[in-house]
Amino acid sequence: MTSPIGLHRVMEPTGVLPQAATRLDNSREIGATEVRVSVERINLDAASFRQLHSKHKGNGAAIRREVLEIINVRGKMQNPVTGSGGMLIGTVDAVGAQSPLGLTVGDRVATLVSLTLTPLAISDGLARWDGQSEQVPARGHAILFERSIAAVLPTDLDPELALAVMDVCGAPALTARVVNQYRDAGRPEIAVAVIGAAGKSGSLSVAAARAAGAKRVVGVVPVERERNLLERAGLADAIVLADARDPVGVSSAVTDVLGRGADVTVVCVDVPGCEHGAILTTADGGTVIFFSMATSFAAAALGAEGLAADVTMLIGNGYLPGHATYALDLLRREDAVRELFQARIAAEAAH
Amino acid sequence: MTSPIGLHRVMEPTGVLPQAATRLDNSREIGATEVRVSVERINLDAASFRQLHSKHKGNGAAIRREVLEIINVRGKMQNPVTGSGGMLIGTVDAVGAQSPLGLTVGDRVATLVSLTLTPLAISDGLARWDGQSEQVPARGHAILFERSIAAVLPTDLDPELALAVMDVCGAPALTARVVNQYRDAGRPEIAVAVIGAAGKSGSLSVAAARAAGAKRVVGVVPVERERNLLERAGLADAIVLADARDPVGVSSAVTDVLGRGADVTVVCVDVPGCEHGAILTTADGGTVIFFSMATSFAAAALGAEGLAADVTMLIGNGYLPGHATYALDLLRREDAVRELFQARIAAEAAH
Repeated sequence: MTSPIGLHRVMEPTGVLPQAATRLDNSREIGATEVRVSVERINLDAASFRQLHSKHKGNGAAIRREVLEIINVRGKMQNPVTGSGGMLIGTVDAVGAQSPLGLTVGDRVATLVSLTLTPLAISDGLARWDGQSEQVPARGHAILFERSIAAVLPTDLDPELALAVMDVCGAPALTARVVNQYRDAGRPEIAVAVIGAAGKSGSLSVAAARAAGAKRVVGVVPVERERNLLERAGLADAIVLADARDPVGVSSAVTDVLGRGADVTVVCVDVPGCEHGAILTTADGGTVIFFSMATSFAAAALGAEGLAADVTMLIGNGYLPGHATYALDLLRREDAVRELFQARIAAEAAH
Repeated sequence: MTSPIGLHRVMEPTGVLPQAATRLDNSREIGATEVRVSVERINLDAASFRQLHSKHKGNGAAIRREVLEIINVRGKMQNPVTGSGGMLIGTVDAVGAQSPLGLTVGDRVATLVSLTLTPLAISDGLARWDGQSEQVPARGHAILFERSIAAVLPTDLDPELALAVMDVCGAPALTARVVNQYRDAGRPEIAVAVIGAAGKSGSLSVAAARAAGAKRVVGVVPVERERNLLERAGLADAIVLADARDPVGVSSAVTDVLGRGADVTVVCVDVPGCEHGAILTTADGGTVIFFSMATSFAAAALGAEGLAADVTMLIGNGYLPGHATYALDLLRREDAVRELFQARIAAEAAH
């Protein structure tokens, strides 16, 4: 019997979830609830690629060799040092009779669950990849489970743009949900602060907060260049320049603009040490949503206690039903978000 | 001017919060919003004492010397290795004219904010402490800020019992709040799972869930001895034996008993690796409250995404207004909770 979460594919150690497994069964044959995807491209997680690049001093052949070996040994792409994976795009080539994912053979899809739990096999030795970029052209197959998440790539958007949006689509969806909860609770004039507002998850979160009915949205950015970028986009009601790691600096910058603390603070900057600033920025009764993987659980928990701050602190869940569609629609509706994304993608390509 | 959160007491490095400071100004003179406490006893954080005990191979004199040196150098008790502090009890001996804490000279109080951010000076060289226990008899003074939290010790309860309750009082308060939110949203028959239900924060969370109107409360415990303890207490509707680190084991044990996932899952076990089990235990639309300091932010965030679990994940905030009073009242009302606590305290004393 196939497990909804892929337990039947776990080979070592037994009894753990696919993400915690050191080895997955990546065989081609699918169970009744599974889907097989013919791989077109793998997007390595940024932290993973950075680690490999630095370990091998930029030697593309060595990087390629290690990625291949990881996939061969583990049956999935999970960097053993960073623990992270990435995502992939490909074409559905087999759908189990009982798969609930709604996919059809021939659909071009992106996997929205991490590669760290996706059975994967490579058949072309990654021959078309120079090892110099997170984008890995590849041939092979990947397996989706009953509870995996894959999104059909929209035909009206550049795939690279769609992927970049899907990669961070949990942030705007959760931001909108939390703002809606405050609205439904009758809170008037909801104020939102987005820390790291000019980035990908940040700009989508700003747009989501506005779309959900926030009265004032303050974007916090670290440097003049990002302030200009966000200012041109015209998404935020106010933009402040502050270092997210400086609790006093960031909180006083935001509360100066709002005249009070934020009802909802969204942390979208991937640097450690932003917990206390986010807590101090938030009004009593407010909510902090942490989307940064650099968030320290203990720093947040002890920080709120030490500051006697009655704030709700959410671990940003990358999954909400309909999150990809919601984020893509935001981008379609808001030219400013699209432009910010395109600028980010161009900057990354040039990098 | 005195800062509500004690910024004026930070000496090194400048601009950080008191918790992040390497040195605080612990001078006796208080500002208009401060309170000075005459110290009676320090309770070192368990992780801190364990580290010191192991480093000095149980040599009490060496442990005492290091604790004294830490306090002298830092102006606060913060173990440089574990980063943790503890709490203290003492008697209020000066109250600034503008202090909002509601304390009076002569009140016997416990500080509910961490020692890691509390200015502290020792005057007796810790001469009455043998270095063999977390409980440190001490003379000296400590400073509370405008937003510090201190609770007057109740006169009807043994101080040790009251302290043990106050130490974990955020857990029952937040559990009750979340259960109330589901009740207010019209959710019928709320089911709660408490992982680590026979412990201090766990048993209080079980009692809080019931008091807040949960229909069914399942206690998860790791060993037979704790099952018996909890069974005798009669607090939970059902008790299951499972290893919280085994996602499949713990989730199937709970869902077998409930016939479905829990609406609210409370994690009260201080071991790493409980994130995925808690997520799998929780129904879609449910909430996981993580109270364990061993929680990994990334494991929770990536786990929920990987499992396509639409659950709200809360970082357990140790502070809620009125949390100490609420928890003490639970203990007063529920003899079973009081007995569990007394058994725990006795076991720790014997240990």
